[in-house]
Amino acid sequence: MLSNTRKVRIEWGDCDPAGIIFYPRYFEIFDASTAMLFERATGLTKLKQLKKLDFSGYPLVHTRARFLKPTRFGDDVTVESTITFGRSSFEVEHKLSLNGETCVECSEKRVWVVRDANGKLKPHPVPQAVLNKFRK
Amino acid sequence: MLSNTRKVRIEWGDCDPAGIIFYPRYFEIFDASTAMLFERATGLTKLKQLKKLDFSGYPLVHTRARFLKPTRFGDDVTVESTITFGRSSFEVEHKLSLNGETCVECSEKRVWVVRDANGKLKPHPVPQAVLNKFRK
Amino acid sequence: MLSNTRKVRIEWGDCDPAGIIFYPRYFEIFDASTAMLFERATGLTKLKQLKKLDFSGYPLVHTRARFLKPTRFGDDVTVESTITFGRSSFEVEHKLSLNGETCVECSEKRVWVVRDANGKLKPHPVPQAVLNKFRK
Amino acid sequence: MLSNTRKVRIEWGDCDPAGIIFYPRYFEIFDASTAMLFERATGLTKLKQLKKLDFSGYPLVHTRARFLKPTRFGDDVTVESTITFGRSSFEVEHKLSLNGETCVECSEKRVWVVRDANGKLKPHPVPQAVLNKFRK
Repeated sequence: MLSNTRKVRIEWGDCDPAGIIFYPRYFEIFDASTAMLFERATGLTKLKQLKKLDFSGYPLVHTRARFLKPTRFGDDVTVESTITFGRSSFEVEHKLSLNGETCVECSEKRVWVVRDANGKLKPHPVPQAVLNKFRK
Repeated sequence: MLSNTRKVRIEWGDCDPAGIIFYPRYFEIFDASTAMLFERATGLTKLKQLKKLDFSGYPLVHTRARFLKPTRFGDDVTVESTITFGRSSFEVEHKLSLNGETCVECSEKRVWVVRDANGKLKPHPVPQAVLNKFRK
Repeated sequence: MLSNTRKVRIEWGDCDPAGIIFYPRYFEIFDASTAMLFERATGLTKLKQLKKLDFSGYPLVHTRARFLKPTRFGDDVTVESTITFGRSSFEVEHKLSLNGETCVECSEKRVWVVRDANGKLKPHPVPQAVLNKFRK
Repeated sequence: MLSNTRKVRIEWGDCDPAGIIFYPRYFEIFDASTAMLFERATGLTKLKQLKKLDFSGYPLVHTRARFLKPTRFGDDVTVESTITFGRSSFEVEHKLSLNGETCVECSEKRVWVVRDANGKLKPHPVPQAVLNKFRK
């Protein structure tokens, strides 16, 4: 399960005076889509992942996005998210589409982090147990 | 159909450094819940309502909320919204609950508005056709 | 110093397809206004307050707001916030105005909380040292 | 004036349960920074630009960002935004820093658009009058 698809409703409050979505809202959608991909693979919400998987999150280090077609309040868009693992990092590609037409393409790179003895965040290899969940 | 219930997932990005939802996010949820109540009753998204119902929205004039229990990312909360119509206004009561326990109670008063000849918004009686949709 | 005034710019992304501010943004503004009131009185940012004042925040228990006139992107509004202390709680009145005209009135009630031995949040009297800062 | 610098306060509500800024908030900051760059150059808020400059906005077509160091609530960050004009498009580079250290680098590409006879948005050369404002 290296990929997950979910539906998202674009709301009135996500849109700006031009009547289309205000683009920072897409990044909120993508962040939640990455969390949902992990939830579907591990069977744990992010809150439970943080408690059980002995890590401190997967902060974003880089993202880029292309905006091809606007979306509007009332649109039920589809977000397909696909993950590729590195050693201490992973990349997620998000494709957001409406009625089969791609509206936004986004890629993000995140790092798996743990806290060291001084409480500082540092990269750590993604645990094999996590990788196994995705490979099922 | 004077009432509607929907599920909402509380996301990581909705929460603050205390680990619980940042309360302005509740008002985003309630605004979308009022829109969904109208959508379910009329069969039209808000975009289509604005095009077909010959009005200019239902701006909020008053709201109040009580926060009884916090919610956290990963919580799937239930929002039950119930409407009561006045002449040119209506009130919506929202009850947001988690596992049967009420977390937030909110009431809002909104005014049905149209644009006058000068483009200014002014209150207007809620059309009978709209009321009929809710009374079915 | 039981009152603080600050200027806030309403941004494009704060506004909705009606071209006016999406009202949940006002609650973001009011939350930051309460934090700024405490910062001005104590000389500490909220991050430093949480570290130095031995408490766990002041969650909101109740709020209500009246929306009198809309504001738009590009508006530089004034927010005047006035606090009244109870024993373990306090109330803040926010008045948001544009060019001298009141646009929104909001009141909020918050509780001063600490964590008990089990990590649960419970109300605690506002420390005298904090009250003294406001009474200077 | 092809560059503008402004200060932004990172707020409690901008931060997530990790205690650091939730990254979509950066894009809200950058969008407002681009609008402020145009405001400083033209002497018009975005609302007045849309009324006076006979165009329909400058939607984003591409953005990318690198996140080097996190920021926290209470941080007063500096955003330096620099524009480069093409024919019907422009690019803005944003550098967000704290105490002289770069925290985020972002670049965005936007297109100058007008509405055609059918109301559809289409690219249009950036007017000479606008370019002149930036070249003063």
